[in-house]
Formats: sequence, structure tokens, C-alpha cells
Amino acid sequence: MPQTLDQQMAFLAEIEKLKSVTRATPIHDASRPENSAEHSWTLALYAVILADQAPAGVDIFRVVRMLLIHDLVEIDVGDVPIHSQNGTAHDSTAIQEAEAAAAARIFGLLPKPLGDDLHALWTEFEAHETPDAIYAKSLDRAQPVLLNLQAGGGSWIDYDVTLAQVEERVGTKVARGLPALWDWVRARITPWFEARG
Amino acid sequence: MPQTLDQQMAFLAEIEKLKSVTRATPIHDASRPENSAEHSWTLALYAVILADQAPAGVDIFRVVRMLLIHDLVEIDVGDVPIHSQNGTAHDSTAIQEAEAAAAARIFGLLPKPLGDDLHALWTEFEAHETPDAIYAKSLDRAQPVLLNLQAGGGSWIDYDVTLAQVEERVGTKVARGLPALWDWVRARITPWFEARG
Repeated sequence: MPQTLDQQMAFLAEIEKLKSVTRATPIHDASRPENSAEHSWTLALYAVILADQAPAGVDIFRVVRMLLIHDLVEIDVGDVPIHSQNGTAHDSTAIQEAEAAAAARIFGLLPKPLGDDLHALWTEFEAHETPDAIYAKSLDRAQPVLLNLQAGGGSWIDYDVTLAQVEERVGTKVARGLPALWDWVRARITPWFEARG
Repeated sequence: MPQTLDQQMAFLAEIEKLKSVTRATPIHDASRPENSAEHSWTLALYAVILADQAPAGVDIFRVVRMLLIHDLVEIDVGDVPIHSQNGTAHDSTAIQEAEAAAAARIFGLLPKPLGDDLHALWTEFEAHETPDAIYAKSLDRAQPVLLNLQAGGGSWIDYDVTLAQVEERVGTKVARGLPALWDWVRARITPWFEARG
């Protein structure tokens, strides 16, 4: 029992470091970059608030747990922006191997059954093939788009991104789980890209 | 349907502002104050990781939802540190009235049944009488203590706090839902206070 609690608390101390991992997207007022811990909080609330939009069969609590832990590997690897290296860096083999090693280290801090359970949930998120993972990934792709819009452009300006690139790199993944949401988002971001010309 | 989605997305845009609300506790490396959005993420994970410690009958998903939304009122009211004004400010009538008004405004952005549901969950958290709320409040009190310790003292130094004051203002609430966790925490913070003399 004390050893179990020691392991649980070691994990909870480790995850505090995610607050130091910054993302390409700025927060709402563009005053600073968003970090991956507060990003994960936002996504967990997206999953709760948009539950009525989720595909049939989705388990919202599983999705919430998945989103709470989906970026923990960034404690070791950092965030790899979607639009960096012209959209190619994010899914590179080197990044995926580093993230897999990070997952083994971080979830390995936990007592065995719980750590294995969360590790499997992370692996499922990364594969984005199950209904739960598809819904989770759609939210993970939608929120930064809306935050860029709220902040006046954000990483679209920094990486000189076009609407077509947002459609291809982000929109297809949002639409896979949440087609109505992507329609809603696209209608709101299109004027921003048209005004930029 | 479009109106429902408009309301859901208006709420999700509003909550982004919680990332600008700073707390008295610093993050793990003492480099900056923690904000209430990332604090809420940490607590949701505390609830998941420490589920085996929760009192009988606790619904972990209800607690996670409660913790995800428990600080949203701070968008209007700001964070009121536990140790400010010698420990008296946090539960003042003026603060409680301002928080109630904020809850009505913020949860009122949502479609009716969902907004009412989350508003009721917030009210339940504030009253901390049900098993779910008692567990949630215990986590909300424990995490800043551990973060202060991790950061080398944090708000204990800023507010010149004694171990007896931590016991009284924080320990009693942690122990109410999680007595074994408070024993664990107290054993780890006691040397810090003894070294400070």
C-alpha cells in the first residue's frame, strides 16, 4: 500500500513538468504560448461539452482520460507543431520512437495495472482507429484552430499557413470524428484567411 | 442544432480565459505562477490516479467533471489564495456572492440541460458535503501543498505560513476525504518546515 501510493505520487509529481512544455498556439489573448497541460484541460472539457456530437458508441470518460494523458510524452520529447517543417515533422519515425520511449518511462512510474491501462489508452489515441480515439483526435485538432482564430492568427501567421493546408492537415482529422463541427469551424476561419489574402 | 453548437462553442471559447488566471502556487520549477486551467488538469489526473484511495461510493467521472469546471468562476473573480489575509479571505461572503454570479453567467452560456447540470456540479463542489465533493476537495487541497514542496516553498514563503496553519487550513480538508494521503503528505512537508525553523 505505501509503495503503491509512493508510485502514484511519483507519477503525479512527474506530470507537473508538462506545464513547462509550450505549444505553437498562443492562448486566447495572444499574450503567451499555450502549454500542453492547460491544452489537455481544454480538450477534456471539449469532450464533456460536445458529448452529444460524439459518434455512436463513444465512452466519454474513456475519452476524457485519454485526453488528460495524451500529451504526457512531451515531457521528454517536447511538442512538435502540426505546421512545422511544412507539415512533415509531426508524424516522423524519429518522433514516434522518442514518444514511445517516453510513454514507457512515464507510465512505468505507476503501479503495474494502472500504468499499463493508461499506456494502452495512449497507444490507442496515437493509432486513432477506435471510435473513442477518433473522437479524441478530432477534438485535439479542432481546439488549436479555434484558439488561433481567437488569438488573431497565432501559428497560422508564424508558419505562413494557407486555408488549404489547414483543411488538409487538420480539417480532415476533425471531420473524421466530428463532421458537423468541422463545417462550423471552417465557416468561421474562412473569413480570416480571405482577409489575409 | 446549430444554436446548440453555437452555445457549446461560445462556452468553450470563454473557458480559454481561465489560462490567464494565476494562482499563489508556483509551478514545479518555481519559474512562474501556476494558472487555474493547468491546475484543473492536474486535479483531474489526481482523481483518476488516486481512484483506489477514494471513499466508497465515489463516482470518479463525476469527480473529474467537477474538477475540470471547479475554478471556472475565477474567470470573473480571480483566484483567492488559501493563505491570503491570514487565511480568512477565501471563504468570505463577498467572494462567495461574486463566485455565485460568475457561475450563473458562465454556465448560462451553455444549452439549458447541460449548463444546469454543470452548475449543479459546481454548487455541489463548493458545499463539499457529498462523497464526490469531499474527494474532489481533498485533491484540490493536496496538490498545491505538494507543488509548493516541489517548487521549494512557494506560497508558504510568500505568506509566511507555519506547518500548524497548513494543517488547519489544508490538512483537515485533505484528511476528510483522503486520510492516508494526508499522512503521506504531512510526513514529506514536515522536514521542510523544520528546516525553516
